[in-house]
Amino acid sequence: MIHTVTIHYPNGARYLPAGQTAHHKAAAKPVLHGGRGMTLEQELNESNRYYLSHDIAVIHKKPTPIQIVKVDYPRRSAAVIKEAYFRQASTTDYNGIYKGRYVDFDAKETRNKTSFPLTNFHQHQIDHMRSCLKQGGVCFGLIKFVTLNRLYLLSASDLIAYWDQQDSGRKSIPIADFEKIAFPIQYALNPVIPYLSAVDDLLS
Amino acid sequence: MIHTVTIHYPNGARYLPAGQTAHHKAAAKPVLHGGRGMTLEQELNESNRYYLSHDIAVIHKKPTPIQIVKVDYPRRSAAVIKEAYFRQASTTDYNGIYKGRYVDFDAKETRNKTSFPLTNFHQHQIDHMRSCLKQGGVCFGLIKFVTLNRLYLLSASDLIAYWDQQDSGRKSIPIADFEKIAFPIQYALNPVIPYLSAVDDLLS
Repeated sequence: MIHTVTIHYPNGARYLPAGQTAHHKAAAKPVLHGGRGMTLEQELNESNRYYLSHDIAVIHKKPTPIQIVKVDYPRRSAAVIKEAYFRQASTTDYNGIYKGRYVDFDAKETRNKTSFPLTNFHQHQIDHMRSCLKQGGVCFGLIKFVTLNRLYLLSASDLIAYWDQQDSGRKSIPIADFEKIAFPIQYALNPVIPYLSAVDDLLS
Repeated sequence: MIHTVTIHYPNGARYLPAGQTAHHKAAAKPVLHGGRGMTLEQELNESNRYYLSHDIAVIHKKPTPIQIVKVDYPRRSAAVIKEAYFRQASTTDYNGIYKGRYVDFDAKETRNKTSFPLTNFHQHQIDHMRSCLKQGGVCFGLIKFVTLNRLYLLSASDLIAYWDQQDSGRKSIPIADFEKIAFPIQYALNPVIPYLSAVDDLLS
C-alpha cells in the first residue's frame, strides 16, 4: 500500500501526488480551499475531469518534471526510483484543446490580500506564454487570492504587460487591477471551477 | 555531479532523462538511430527545440509521470525523492500548437520489419486521441521502424480504425499499409525530424 506524504517544491508550493482525491486530502489536511477541502490544483484536476467526461474540453495538468538519478529494478515491472530531484518545468502546467483552440495556462495561489506578487511566475513560463500567443494559442493565468477566496482569469497578454514593466514599475498586480481587467470565476459544483466560461469571455 | 542511468518503463521502453544530449547518449550507447546516435525521443526533442526557436511551433514532450512515495527535504531547496515509481501516462507524450492548431501525438518505435504491433499503444492513449479528435485536434502517431530506419506519420483516425478492428482482425499494421495511408518522413539536419511537413500533408 503506497501512502503519500506532503512535500514542497523549491519555491515552497505544496506538491500534490496525482490521483489524490479531495476526500483523502481533506482527511490529511483540514484547511479548506474553495470551501471543499481541495487545493487549487485538485479543484482544477477535478474540473478538467468533468470537462473531459462531458466532451467539453481535453485539458490536463502536465506531470511534475523529475530528474531521475538512481533507479533499482529487480524486475522491469518493478522499477523503483531511489534518488530523484524536482526540476523546474520549461512550460506552464496546463494545456489542451477547447472548441478547437489550443489552451495553455498556469495556476497560482497567493495569500496576499492586496496584490499578486509577480514572483509567483518564472521567466520561462512568461517566455512560453509569449511563444504560444505567437502561434495563436489561448493563454492565461488562473490566479487565486486564497485568503479572500477570489479567483481570476488573467489573460497572458495582460500578465506579460505587467511582467515587462517590473524594472520600471511595480513588482505585483494590485487586486483592484484584477477587478478591472481580469475575469472573475465563481466556484460551482460541476465543475468546481468553471474556468472555461471565463475563457469564453476572454475569447469574445 | 548528477549522473543518470539507463532505466526501463514497465513496457521495456528505455527511459531518457530530459536534457540528456545526443553526445552524452552517443557516448553512453553507440547504437545509431536515425544515423545520429539519438533515440527517437531525443530526435523529436531536438526537432521541437528547432521549431520553437524558429517560431514555427510550440510542441513539448510531457514529463514522465512519477508516483512519489518518500521525500527527504533537509531544506526545501534540496528536496530529495527517496522512493518513487513510474506511473502510466493518461495522455499521449507530445502536444502543443502549430499554425493555431492543437497538435497531439505519440511516438513509437518497433524493431519489427514487416508490421507495427498495435500493442505498442495503450487503450488510454487511443481514448485520449479520440477525445482530442472530437475537439478538432490534429492527432497522429509517429511510428519508426528502427531496423528499417523508416519513419511515418499515421493519422489518429487511421490508427483508431486499426485499433478497433483488432478483435475481429489483425493485431498489427502491415508496413505495406503504411506505404499506402501514412505519410513518410525523411530525416534531415534542421530539424532532424521535419514531421511538421507531414502534418501539413495530413492537413491538406
